[in-house]
Amino acid sequence: MNSDPKARIDAALTQAVRNAARQPAPSRLASALDYATTPGGARIRPTILMSVNGACGDDQPQLADAAAAALELMHCASLVHDDLPCFDDADMRRGKAAVHRAYSQPLAVLTGDSLIMLAFETLARAADAAPSRGLELLRILATRSGMPMGICAGQGWESEDKIDLRAYHMSKTGALFIAATQMGAVAAGQEAEPWEELGARIGEAFQVADDLRDALYDAETLGKPVGQDDLHGRPSAVAELGVDGAIRRLKDILSGAIASIPACPGEAALAHMVRAYAERLTPVAPAHSRA
Amino acid sequence: MNSDPKARIDAALTQAVRNAARQPAPSRLASALDYATTPGGARIRPTILMSVNGACGDDQPQLADAAAAALELMHCASLVHDDLPCFDDADMRRGKAAVHRAYSQPLAVLTGDSLIMLAFETLARAADAAPSRGLELLRILATRSGMPMGICAGQGWESEDKIDLRAYHMSKTGALFIAATQMGAVAAGQEAEPWEELGARIGEAFQVADDLRDALYDAETLGKPVGQDDLHGRPSAVAELGVDGAIRRLKDILSGAIASIPACPGEAALAHMVRAYAERLTPVAPAHSRA
Repeated sequence: MNSDPKARIDAALTQAVRNAARQPAPSRLASALDYATTPGGARIRPTILMSVNGACGDDQPQLADAAAAALELMHCASLVHDDLPCFDDADMRRGKAAVHRAYSQPLAVLTGDSLIMLAFETLARAADAAPSRGLELLRILATRSGMPMGICAGQGWESEDKIDLRAYHMSKTGALFIAATQMGAVAAGQEAEPWEELGARIGEAFQVADDLRDALYDAETLGKPVGQDDLHGRPSAVAELGVDGAIRRLKDILSGAIASIPACPGEAALAHMVRAYAERLTPVAPAHSRA
Repeated sequence: MNSDPKARIDAALTQAVRNAARQPAPSRLASALDYATTPGGARIRPTILMSVNGACGDDQPQLADAAAAALELMHCASLVHDDLPCFDDADMRRGKAAVHRAYSQPLAVLTGDSLIMLAFETLARAADAAPSRGLELLRILATRSGMPMGICAGQGWESEDKIDLRAYHMSKTGALFIAATQMGAVAAGQEAEPWEELGARIGEAFQVADDLRDALYDAETLGKPVGQDDLHGRPSAVAELGVDGAIRRLKDILSGAIASIPACPGEAALAHMVRAYAERLTPVAPAHSRA
């Protein structure tokens, strides 16, 4: 078994996308599936999944690999649909043209849909050796992707006049991080419930770090006042707490995340992972002091 | 147990959509999920699923109900996305405004996405009593919805310069009928494979009947020549065979469908169902003779 999580994630993703292109297949849609999933970003969510799975024993590595691939496929699907003209109307994603610009709007809708199907198919195909774990993984992925607790709900809140902020953040950003920690645990035969808090806190930290990056990036490059509401009027930790307050908040959340790690064989290694993750999130502070 | 398939399908669908709206939920998206699934059309695909399941013994009725609901949710999702401006740009669906007209384009994309997630969630939640059947049902649903053998692939072929007609029809129209017969059998503990042909033939019959309806409707109401290629340039059985030839073809396909029914306790009842289905499909003939 290859023990490098990044290599395992990439291999599982490549295999899944190749499966979706087996002949006969419409070639442009097949190409768009590859385009939307490679070279990829930091693969943060499946990496967290693999870390938790490793800490819990990784006794069904093929199931864990499929779960990681499925989670990243779902994340990629959400990016393709979020970039559509009717949502963010983004021209670029990960340094290249967004799918609807590089292909077409119909193909972008179909790419998102196909990646969602592929996520569930990949997971369902890998679960024969541990059917109960497989079903639980499928339930978690569906719940944290759909309505009312998943990323669809998160986007849906942006069409409401009155937003439930807690539900909005939990579904928009938290959902796939909760899926990451819970699926990592379940793939290794553990209960899902104790792992919800870790995922929720990592998601919260991610959100605050994102708000900080937005605010500091604006201040440095655009001369806009730090801490203003972002362009889409979404609530921001920086607007609420200021930059220094948001940095303190980020550190508190990550401490809480470490404290929430359930007892498991790899508890120490997992705490180390969260600390490393915290260091990756906080280079915003030096950037701020330069501004 | 309620033995009326229609009542079972409606109850399972209502329960699933209600589940997706549990509080807190973004209210417009929750409302759109209900709007997109009710009052519904003929529910043909889940009805076929229930008929096959009944013919195979219906020994896990809750799983069959969930499978039927999941299949119809997937079909409704595909209708919502197909109606979008970038595809068919349809104003109306089932006698009322299409979702993107009644709500908005972002909510229509999210409604389709959410219904897909809900389909998988509904099935995964119902499978604890028979995990292996559940996983197989999830695999079939994902395969026949995605790439390269599902309805996503079917739409994807319409973005190609050169269409593989067999693959196009099989994925565009056949896929969810194959899912219907196979899922009905698997929910009752039978193998999927022997049921593929019945689903494929019913799908083919549906396609030919649709071509006939289009052609005869045009002739009667618009004075357009019968048998012309349809507006989107999709291939048509009427264009290829003429109206009488297409009606003969439809009857041949349905005879083949009946002949393909695998041996099972309810084989005779199932043949009766296909014959009744054939009668519902062929009122096109009298309409033609009136024209």
